[in-house]
Amino acid sequence: MKNIIKGTVQCLLFVLAFTQWTVAQVTDDFKPASSNLLGAEFPKISSDFRVSLRLNAPDAVKVQVAGNLTGGKVIDMTKDTDGNWTVTIPPAVPGFHYYWFLVDGVRVNDPGSDTYFCFNRPTTGIEIPTPGEDFFMPKNVPHGDVREHWYFSDITGKWRRAFVYTPAEYEKNGAKKYPLLFLLHGSSENERGWSQQGHMSFIMDNLIAEGKAVPMVVVMDNGYATDKNAKPVVQPAVQAAPQPANTGTPAGTPPGQSAASTNVPSTLSIVYVKDIIPSIESYYRILPGRENHAIAGLSMGGSQAGLIGLNNLDLFASIGIFSGAIHGLTEPKVAYGGVFANAADFNSRVKILWSGAGTAEEMQLTRQNEYKKKLDDLGIKVTYYESPGTAHEWHTWRRFLKEFAPLLFK
Amino acid sequence: MKNIIKGTVQCLLFVLAFTQWTVAQVTDDFKPASSNLLGAEFPKISSDFRVSLRLNAPDAVKVQVAGNLTGGKVIDMTKDTDGNWTVTIPPAVPGFHYYWFLVDGVRVNDPGSDTYFCFNRPTTGIEIPTPGEDFFMPKNVPHGDVREHWYFSDITGKWRRAFVYTPAEYEKNGAKKYPLLFLLHGSSENERGWSQQGHMSFIMDNLIAEGKAVPMVVVMDNGYATDKNAKPVVQPAVQAAPQPANTGTPAGTPPGQSAASTNVPSTLSIVYVKDIIPSIESYYRILPGRENHAIAGLSMGGSQAGLIGLNNLDLFASIGIFSGAIHGLTEPKVAYGGVFANAADFNSRVKILWSGAGTAEEMQLTRQNEYKKKLDDLGIKVTYYESPGTAHEWHTWRRFLKEFAPLLFK
Repeated sequence: MKNIIKGTVQCLLFVLAFTQWTVAQVTDDFKPASSNLLGAEFPKISSDFRVSLRLNAPDAVKVQVAGNLTGGKVIDMTKDTDGNWTVTIPPAVPGFHYYWFLVDGVRVNDPGSDTYFCFNRPTTGIEIPTPGEDFFMPKNVPHGDVREHWYFSDITGKWRRAFVYTPAEYEKNGAKKYPLLFLLHGSSENERGWSQQGHMSFIMDNLIAEGKAVPMVVVMDNGYATDKNAKPVVQPAVQAAPQPANTGTPAGTPPGQSAASTNVPSTLSIVYVKDIIPSIESYYRILPGRENHAIAGLSMGGSQAGLIGLNNLDLFASIGIFSGAIHGLTEPKVAYGGVFANAADFNSRVKILWSGAGTAEEMQLTRQNEYKKKLDDLGIKVTYYESPGTAHEWHTWRRFLKEFAPLLFK
Repeated sequence: MKNIIKGTVQCLLFVLAFTQWTVAQVTDDFKPASSNLLGAEFPKISSDFRVSLRLNAPDAVKVQVAGNLTGGKVIDMTKDTDGNWTVTIPPAVPGFHYYWFLVDGVRVNDPGSDTYFCFNRPTTGIEIPTPGEDFFMPKNVPHGDVREHWYFSDITGKWRRAFVYTPAEYEKNGAKKYPLLFLLHGSSENERGWSQQGHMSFIMDNLIAEGKAVPMVVVMDNGYATDKNAKPVVQPAVQAAPQPANTGTPAGTPPGQSAASTNVPSTLSIVYVKDIIPSIESYYRILPGRENHAIAGLSMGGSQAGLIGLNNLDLFASIGIFSGAIHGLTEPKVAYGGVFANAADFNSRVKILWSGAGTAEEMQLTRQNEYKKKLDDLGIKVTYYESPGTAHEWHTWRRFLKEFAPLLFK
């Protein structure tokens, strides 16, 4: 409740700030985005958060920009006499946004900006400033490493890659064991998202240095898995065809899955239990016991964290659902193996159940309010949080990690 | 000498293999490249190593393909009635190649393939098989981690990122210290190249598991550095403008730098001595002493490894120059602080000086033969190697690491 009030106050401050921007004199103080590649002049952002984009394409007939940055709109760009196509747009909301150019209909990344894995391919991203926030930036504190960790998965019959954050002190305490948090990415993204787009290592470094979070190992694995014995199925679509303009980050699991569906272990659940957790526990110094293990994820990964965590409470005592879903609450005695059937049992067994949505992501916020009502009625204790002014994008999830991690393993 | 003979024999085998391909019946057994993104049908490679490319662009006027894959040529693609542009090409040589489409003149990455940092931007790459070689693939052996390591550089006034390989046994030997190898990337690439394009962790895992290389820590840092007090200069060009078709990977340091120039410490040299080495030695368990430290690099990074290593023989006893250069040998008593002035001294002080070039990279091979002649005349001991059939690309450098690493720290 305190967090909701805090969130609402912050939200009002944001609305005020936005209002100020719109009435302020339009400025022309554009500077290269902080996310630009070294030396790139474009994209540029003004102090009132308009974004100036440019692509040199003298022979193109039509150039447009699309993606989360434009709020899903396809915006035409204008060609000058040098063959540069330009446009200046207000971003949908502050935060981290994917975007791309459409050059005669073909999706093209901005050569001035880095790429990040989303929409099943490397896609341009841009950082729109969120004033007054630096919790996700590198500071003069001890820094942990993010490790690329390869292991063989018996279930999928393939080599898999996880990224593993070990806190700075892990190097200096050769015998000490650490609690373990799993962080899952969203639909069409991959295991690199949390460390690249999410800046998770800087968030954790800062929280640990301030004494707000206990030092922990954080594992980020891939959210897709296919059983080696399964018939070949169509994989997440990677099309050579140009995609229609997307309205933003894929929104993850659709709402309204049945209670029964929450009891069927997915291949990913099995990979977690049989491959990922044993591989991590045998390689790193991990504290045993469910009270030392947590799982959280965003969007599709939030729903997966719920499925894997709630169905395996012998393995996890804390669960975080970031812009995700809790399904099947029309039959609360059936969903997730019946964990919600007895609220007193659940509340004593689950140390943290945490749920967050951004105030600018309507579907997820509505969904959160819907399951909040049902879980409140059941007496299930959940910590809720709303990220002021942000949408279905990474800055929302950075804030969630900053709120969630300090609650763990205490 | 033994290596040169071995290389020459391998080269002849390659020529024979190539000849077989060309006389073999043309087959249509195209399969998705091993480097494709999950589920992508294109690019496809046939068993005789032709590459079939496709891009859907119904509204484009002209679509072409260019890059290392085409040997620097710009090749027109043909549009079918579905708006798919296609072409089938023979790759320049086997190995790892960058390429891109030109859609009405704009450089576009292949949506079916992953991107790798080169030409100062994320650029599509493809793996063309090199028959009979799997030394760079993951095997059922203990795997080390590649860690993203952040540290603040006083010289540049900026946060820098290194990638650090720690061998699998590093986790299990909490007190043991390890020797240290620095690996430098090439021009317009970045610190992720050796682990991503280079597969260095699998190469090291396999060498260590076979007992061919001693377990070592390998550090891959960025090859660019600007002093914080320097006047702003134009950085490596990141242009929104479409680039002309490149003939391949940027070829690195031009030949023919003066002997005097090899005595001036670059900003990167200073960053290595004052920032990178202290940061690594304070964070990881590193054996002290020059005989436990080596430095090697490819192309531009090979020349840098020579400059940093030969000018700091108090820090490094082993140096590897991969498709790089040794400069200033018209004045051998002056070059690199005069290290070549006394061959007996040099040969007793330097444990390994190693130099390699691919037989299909003419400039680098010619240059290597030129400095080999001069260093032979001076009596300087160098181990030379030629990679059969490969060009100025990552498969050449993977082979160099496989040859070089087993010589170190013994």
